[in-house]
Amino acid sequence: MSLTPSDKALVPFVSVDHMMQLVHHVGLPEMLRGIADAIEEDFRRWPLFDKTPRVASHSEQGVIELMPTSDGDVYGFKYVNGHPSNTREGLQTVTAFGLLADVANGYPVLLSEMTLLTALRTAATSALVARVLAPKNSRVMAMIGAGAQSEFQSIAMQAIVGIEEVRLYDIDPAATAKCAANLENTGLRVVRCDSAEDAIMGAQIITTCTADKQYATILTDNMIGSGVHINAIGGDCPGKTELAPAILHRADIFVEFPEQTRIEGEIQQLDDDHPVTEFWEVLTGAAPGRRDAQQITLFDSVGFAIEDFSALRFVREKIKGTAFFHPLDLLADPDDPRDLYGMLQRAKP
Amino acid sequence: MSLTPSDKALVPFVSVDHMMQLVHHVGLPEMLRGIADAIEEDFRRWPLFDKTPRVASHSEQGVIELMPTSDGDVYGFKYVNGHPSNTREGLQTVTAFGLLADVANGYPVLLSEMTLLTALRTAATSALVARVLAPKNSRVMAMIGAGAQSEFQSIAMQAIVGIEEVRLYDIDPAATAKCAANLENTGLRVVRCDSAEDAIMGAQIITTCTADKQYATILTDNMIGSGVHINAIGGDCPGKTELAPAILHRADIFVEFPEQTRIEGEIQQLDDDHPVTEFWEVLTGAAPGRRDAQQITLFDSVGFAIEDFSALRFVREKIKGTAFFHPLDLLADPDDPRDLYGMLQRAKP
Repeated sequence: MSLTPSDKALVPFVSVDHMMQLVHHVGLPEMLRGIADAIEEDFRRWPLFDKTPRVASHSEQGVIELMPTSDGDVYGFKYVNGHPSNTREGLQTVTAFGLLADVANGYPVLLSEMTLLTALRTAATSALVARVLAPKNSRVMAMIGAGAQSEFQSIAMQAIVGIEEVRLYDIDPAATAKCAANLENTGLRVVRCDSAEDAIMGAQIITTCTADKQYATILTDNMIGSGVHINAIGGDCPGKTELAPAILHRADIFVEFPEQTRIEGEIQQLDDDHPVTEFWEVLTGAAPGRRDAQQITLFDSVGFAIEDFSALRFVREKIKGTAFFHPLDLLADPDDPRDLYGMLQRAKP
Repeated sequence: MSLTPSDKALVPFVSVDHMMQLVHHVGLPEMLRGIADAIEEDFRRWPLFDKTPRVASHSEQGVIELMPTSDGDVYGFKYVNGHPSNTREGLQTVTAFGLLADVANGYPVLLSEMTLLTALRTAATSALVARVLAPKNSRVMAMIGAGAQSEFQSIAMQAIVGIEEVRLYDIDPAATAKCAANLENTGLRVVRCDSAEDAIMGAQIITTCTADKQYATILTDNMIGSGVHINAIGGDCPGKTELAPAILHRADIFVEFPEQTRIEGEIQQLDDDHPVTEFWEVLTGAAPGRRDAQQITLFDSVGFAIEDFSALRFVREKIKGTAFFHPLDLLADPDDPRDLYGMLQRAKP
C-alpha cells in the first residue's frame, strides 16, 4: 500500500522565493501586463463573481482579514493583515497569502505567498484603470509616497500606460532616495521632488500612496488642475484618507466595489449616495469613462478580492511546467476515503 | 545582504505526514486527551473569543467554508470543504487546513493540515462532552455509522470516558468490517451488529455519525430508553439530520454555539426558541449538566471554530523542539519593510 499522497492531495505552493524567481523569469513589466490582463478579463465578467464582503478581525494593533470570492468554477481567498505599527519593529505592515480551490470538489489547487503578489496586483489594477481613464498620451506621473508600492506603481504605469517620467515625493528623503535608486535602469526618467506641489508639476497622472493611518491631506484642492487622473491608493481603511474633500467634489469618481469603498476609501468623506462609477462597467461599456480632456478622473482604490483571484489565476497558469513551486502535502488522502484511521495506522514508523 | 528570510517570515508548516508522525510520537489516546484538555480550557474562557459565524461559499456540489476566531492574542481560521459526492470519485468528503496568527502583528505562526486534525478534535470534543454528560460509569457505546470518524470516536471515548465496548453498525457491512479491523489491538471489545437496534442494546452512549445529506432517521423514538447520552455528530448542515424529532423533545439538548446549531444541527427540526444549553456553561458551572440517571442527554454537535483553534494551539505547542514541521517561506520579509522592490531585485538569479 503506497504512502505517497495522490496528485490531488498535493497542493502546488509558491513560496516568496519562488514568486521572486517567477517574476524574474517572466520579467516584471510582462508579469504586470499579464496580471492586468487577467484582472481586466475578470472585471468584464464581474456580475458572475460571488462578492462576499471581507471578513475582518479587528484588534487594537491592526486587522486580520479573509477575502473570499468565487467565479462558480474556482474559489479563492486571501489572508491579509494590516498593522501600521509593524514597521517600527522591522516587520511588514501587510503580509498576505492566498489560495485557489476547485469549486466542484473543494480541493485546494494553489497556495501562494501574496505579500509580493498583492503589490503586483495593486500596481496592475492602478495601471489598468489609468490606461482607460487617464488623459490620452499621459507620459508623466507624480508619485507621492515612496514606500513599498511606489516602484511597482511606477513600472506598471510605464509598462501598461506608457509613462516615461516619474516625479517622486515622500516626506522622508531616504524613502525618495530608495525609490529613485531602485528605478535606475528601468528606462524611466526619475525626478526627485521636494514637495507634493513640485511632484505634480506637468503630471497627467497623480498617484498617492502614503501610509499614515489618519485623515491626511496629501493633496489640497488648489493643487489639482483640470484634466488629470488621480490614482488614490493610500486611503484604504476606515479613518485613513489622503485627499481634500473638495477634490472629490470636482472629480468623477471610479471605484472597485462601492459597498467596500464607501467604508474604506476616500469617499468615506462623502455622503453615502454620492455618485460613483464601478470601474468594471467602464470596461464593459455599461458606463462612460473619461468624457473630455478637462475632466478630473479619480480612481478611489482600496483593493478587492477579485483582483487577488485574478493574480492567483495568472500565477497558477504561469507556474505550469516550471520549477517555481513545490507540491505541499496539505491534504489527507486515504486510498479509501472512509479509512482515514487506516491511513494513519499505515504511516506508523 | 542576506537572502535568507527571517524567523518571522518562515511559518512552521505541519503536513499530513508530519501530523501522522506527531500522532504516533505522542500516541493517539494521549493526543486525543491533550486536544480535549485544550478544548476544555478554551470552552471555559468562551466569552472572550471572537465568535464570527462561518463564511460559506455554497455551490451545487458542496460548500467551502472559512471558520475564523480569536482569543485576543491568537487568531485562527480553518478552511474546510464539504462535498458529499466526493467519495464517489475516491476523494475525501471533507478536507481542511488551518492557520494561527499573532494578533499583535498579524504574522502567521502555524499552518497545518486539518483533515486529520479535524477528525481528532471532533472525537475529542465528543468525548469531553460525554465525560461530563453521560451516565456515570458508562462502559458501552453504540457506534452507528462506521465511516472515517468512527475509529477516532471509539478511541476518544475509551481514552477520555473509559468506554470498554463498542457496538458497531453501518448499512454497509464493509464499513463495519473496516472499522472493526482497525479497532483490533486497541483494547476495546468490538461487537459487530446487524442493525441500529442491535447496536444500542446495553449502550449508555449512542454515537450517530452517518453521511447521508438528507433528513434521515437513524434513531427512532422507540429505540431510545431513559438514561442514555446521545452523541449526534452526523447532522451537521442544513437539511441533514439523523434523529426522530420525538427524541429531541424527550432529551435535554446541549450544543456548542446555538446560532450555528439551529441552522445546521438536529435542532433545525425544532422551533427556534426550543431551549438548549451551551455546553461551555456546563463546564463553568453556569448551567446544569446531567441531573439524574433517567435523563436523556443529547449533544447536538456540528463542530465549532474554537475547537479547531484549541486543536491548532495544542499542535503548535507539541511540535516545539520536534522535527514534525518544516519552515515555510510564506511571507515576504525585506530587510527594509518599505523596500519590497529591493528585495525582489536582490533575488535576481
